[in-house]
Amino acid sequence: MADDRFFSRRGPFTLGEIAKRVDALLDSAAPSDLAVCGIAPLETANSAELSYFCDERRAGAFAASSAGAIITSRKLSARPHNGAWLLVAQDPRLAFALASLMFYPRDAAEPGIHASAQVDPTAVMGEGCQIGPGAVIGPNVRMGSRCRIGANAVIGQSVQFGEGVVVGNNATISHALIGSRVRIGAGTVVGGEGFGIVPAPTGLLCSAQFGRVIIGDDVRVGSNCAIDRGAMDDTVIGAGTAIDNLIQIAHNVRIGRSCVFAGQAGVAGSTTIGDGVMVGGQVAIGDHLQIGSNAKIAGKSGVMRDVAAGETVAGYPAVPIRQWHRQTVASARSARTAKPEAGEG
Amino acid sequence: MADDRFFSRRGPFTLGEIAKRVDALLDSAAPSDLAVCGIAPLETANSAELSYFCDERRAGAFAASSAGAIITSRKLSARPHNGAWLLVAQDPRLAFALASLMFYPRDAAEPGIHASAQVDPTAVMGEGCQIGPGAVIGPNVRMGSRCRIGANAVIGQSVQFGEGVVVGNNATISHALIGSRVRIGAGTVVGGEGFGIVPAPTGLLCSAQFGRVIIGDDVRVGSNCAIDRGAMDDTVIGAGTAIDNLIQIAHNVRIGRSCVFAGQAGVAGSTTIGDGVMVGGQVAIGDHLQIGSNAKIAGKSGVMRDVAAGETVAGYPAVPIRQWHRQTVASARSARTAKPEAGEG
Amino acid sequence: MADDRFFSRRGPFTLGEIAKRVDALLDSAAPSDLAVCGIAPLETANSAELSYFCDERRAGAFAASSAGAIITSRKLSARPHNGAWLLVAQDPRLAFALASLMFYPRDAAEPGIHASAQVDPTAVMGEGCQIGPGAVIGPNVRMGSRCRIGANAVIGQSVQFGEGVVVGNNATISHALIGSRVRIGAGTVVGGEGFGIVPAPTGLLCSAQFGRVIIGDDVRVGSNCAIDRGAMDDTVIGAGTAIDNLIQIAHNVRIGRSCVFAGQAGVAGSTTIGDGVMVGGQVAIGDHLQIGSNAKIAGKSGVMRDVAAGETVAGYPAVPIRQWHRQTVASARSARTAKPEAGEG
Repeated sequence: MADDRFFSRRGPFTLGEIAKRVDALLDSAAPSDLAVCGIAPLETANSAELSYFCDERRAGAFAASSAGAIITSRKLSARPHNGAWLLVAQDPRLAFALASLMFYPRDAAEPGIHASAQVDPTAVMGEGCQIGPGAVIGPNVRMGSRCRIGANAVIGQSVQFGEGVVVGNNATISHALIGSRVRIGAGTVVGGEGFGIVPAPTGLLCSAQFGRVIIGDDVRVGSNCAIDRGAMDDTVIGAGTAIDNLIQIAHNVRIGRSCVFAGQAGVAGSTTIGDGVMVGGQVAIGDHLQIGSNAKIAGKSGVMRDVAAGETVAGYPAVPIRQWHRQTVASARSARTAKPEAGEG
Repeated sequence: MADDRFFSRRGPFTLGEIAKRVDALLDSAAPSDLAVCGIAPLETANSAELSYFCDERRAGAFAASSAGAIITSRKLSARPHNGAWLLVAQDPRLAFALASLMFYPRDAAEPGIHASAQVDPTAVMGEGCQIGPGAVIGPNVRMGSRCRIGANAVIGQSVQFGEGVVVGNNATISHALIGSRVRIGAGTVVGGEGFGIVPAPTGLLCSAQFGRVIIGDDVRVGSNCAIDRGAMDDTVIGAGTAIDNLIQIAHNVRIGRSCVFAGQAGVAGSTTIGDGVMVGGQVAIGDHLQIGSNAKIAGKSGVMRDVAAGETVAGYPAVPIRQWHRQTVASARSARTAKPEAGEG
Repeated sequence: MADDRFFSRRGPFTLGEIAKRVDALLDSAAPSDLAVCGIAPLETANSAELSYFCDERRAGAFAASSAGAIITSRKLSARPHNGAWLLVAQDPRLAFALASLMFYPRDAAEPGIHASAQVDPTAVMGEGCQIGPGAVIGPNVRMGSRCRIGANAVIGQSVQFGEGVVVGNNATISHALIGSRVRIGAGTVVGGEGFGIVPAPTGLLCSAQFGRVIIGDDVRVGSNCAIDRGAMDDTVIGAGTAIDNLIQIAHNVRIGRSCVFAGQAGVAGSTTIGDGVMVGGQVAIGDHLQIGSNAKIAGKSGVMRDVAAGETVAGYPAVPIRQWHRQTVASARSARTAKPEAGEG
């Protein structure tokens, strides 16, 4: 059960409401009007709480759980358990995610501009926006309804937001056109100057960076990321893409829809990434590359060539993942036969 | 000698006081009441200053140093030197660290709430807290005595601090219970939404993240880190653990006591790390892994399997470090026999 | 053409003025008083706009471009094109960068201290400085003329700036002496406590960090970086060095002049780097190393040994780049002969 000091729980919901919302099958004998008050792990859930079971290795916890209801798959539902009502879903992870959002929906904006916020008189904000303490809203900013701007966040001149955009505390947004329902984490910088360094006789010259950042609807960006504006063209992030923390997106990068970037990944300048691409943690993707749609890049890979649509790569330099697994096997074998250097052994 | 504009030096201390505090032996002929006014490198220290010598390669600087007193080890104390009084310690690095804190103790809080800070009336703060300009303290925050909250830092609803906690400028803390004497660097985000992405028919779904961050006593976190709150369970950092800059700790990670994480390391979701684990710079640790106590992970490794207690690993994928050294030797050898590709030479 | 909501374009300039400023040759038949109003990519530039062509693969766009004038090289100027006047430069990238700064020079400071800024009465600022909303300027800060301090940025006690320094929103600067025309990105932390962790019988001890950060003239630092102050000596960044986003520079690191650090690179403590060194993205450089002047370190390398002046290295561990290419070839070959593990295929 979540800590009520931090989260306000909705509900209770009936078993029937939950089954319908998460698209799960409920035994016909189950009391569809049973009240479910919260969500908890298998180990701690009580008879009024919902839990979930979708990893075989957790069968012991499933068997012993006192949860009142458990979301699981058809296959795992056959495992022994302790009398909980089962909600059998095609995709139990998705079903549980949907249930979690029933009990803990994202906080809505609490309309109002804090007295300590600095809002330029030329900024135009839709209904129900919340502007936090110390936030700075620049000239000619355009904001749809129900946006939430965190404390001490800074929104630069002429930035545009759709509806329901959330910007975290201490974030900085500039030179950007941003869709609806976009969420940007605390400390993230969007629209910083791209890194356009040209050697000159007198030292390094930074060229002017006069492009923008375009972010589609429903994009999610984590904490302390850096997304630079384009040099002359734009940096683009397609609708529905999810970006974790501490990620760099360099100038002129174009990312498609519904991509996933795990923590500390980075994409160098002018690379184009298709739709549905999965990028693991600490991956580096070089500049001016093409990454095809639905490609998968394993964690910590260093991508130095184009990746075809649908391909899965791993390694540094990144190669097709089967090749990488074989290289890894061969390398381990080579270590067995190689004589250690003096002093090892 | 430190720049007095930035640091207020304590002291002077007598040679005897220092020897006692850092647990070092002083020659019986030494004037234990000699005043020592400061600390400086071997090269620049004068006869009223303390220096240290614990790396053989610095023997030349030791021999030539004009320092009044030098902390060193029994073994190195036999090297030629220029008349400084020697403080011979079992662990000269530790002894010097202790001496450094005599002259430059951490700044104490200067009690008071800056007029521009925004403190919710329901927040409760202990005696002697310092709240910086523009800082935001949310509803129901609980803070022990002598905490220091930096300028423009944002502390979210219901966050709890023990005593003597220091939060840097522009940091954001939410959904967190934090022990005593914890220090969190500037720009760091604690309690951000975990990255719980589930593919759904209509695109990606971000599940609700309703866990917390629990940080033990004496934890130290550097600048611009991102420590996410748990999804349903908590993200936990054990007492005395030290975390450098730009580090990601993902949701549900559990870290033990007295671990060390060097810069830009990252730990993916739900991984458990024991006590006393040493993690090098830019290390990536995958999700759902177990890292045993006192394991060591060499810089830039990519850890994709469990690591046993006490084991030292290196490489990508990480393997036992001796194996990695042999792989490295074998790989270099293979390069000698491999024909270069066309165009190389 | 840049989005006028975000950028205020200068000009128009005549073709002759541009040719002179960027040091390019213009056909004697060209109308040197032709007005050029802006800059755009080959594809979208109109007859009053300037574009550039310096990559053979873009020959099709060059041939079809409606641009009024195009910067290019002697060699590429022979390619077919659509009647644009050509500005032929020795180094077309540099010429175009210079042209970009004619049309989009960096914003000058708009003198004034925002009413919500907190400026200590002992701070001394030169003429024409701009202090943004919510910015905090500590005691005894010294600032040359025409500095721009972003919104909610925090400048700690006694920090010194030369002239024309730009500090981004939500950045934190402390314990630092900074030259002229330095630009520091949003969210970056300069002067944080170095990571000096010493094991002690009772746990880990953080030694006092009483050094400074010294930054030379014309240094450029991106967003969300972390540059720690020295332990006892200083952390030094030489004049003209360019640092991208999310980069860590640890305590006591000394970097020379005109170096380039791409995104997410990190340098561990006490390493010394010469002049003109190029460091790729996500590179890790270990502690206490020497990197000679004009060395090049390929993206994602892990440098664990000294690198000689002028050397190019790659890999993890980093080796001379030709060796790394051969290792990569040999490794791919080994994968072809290695039997896959069970389950692969």
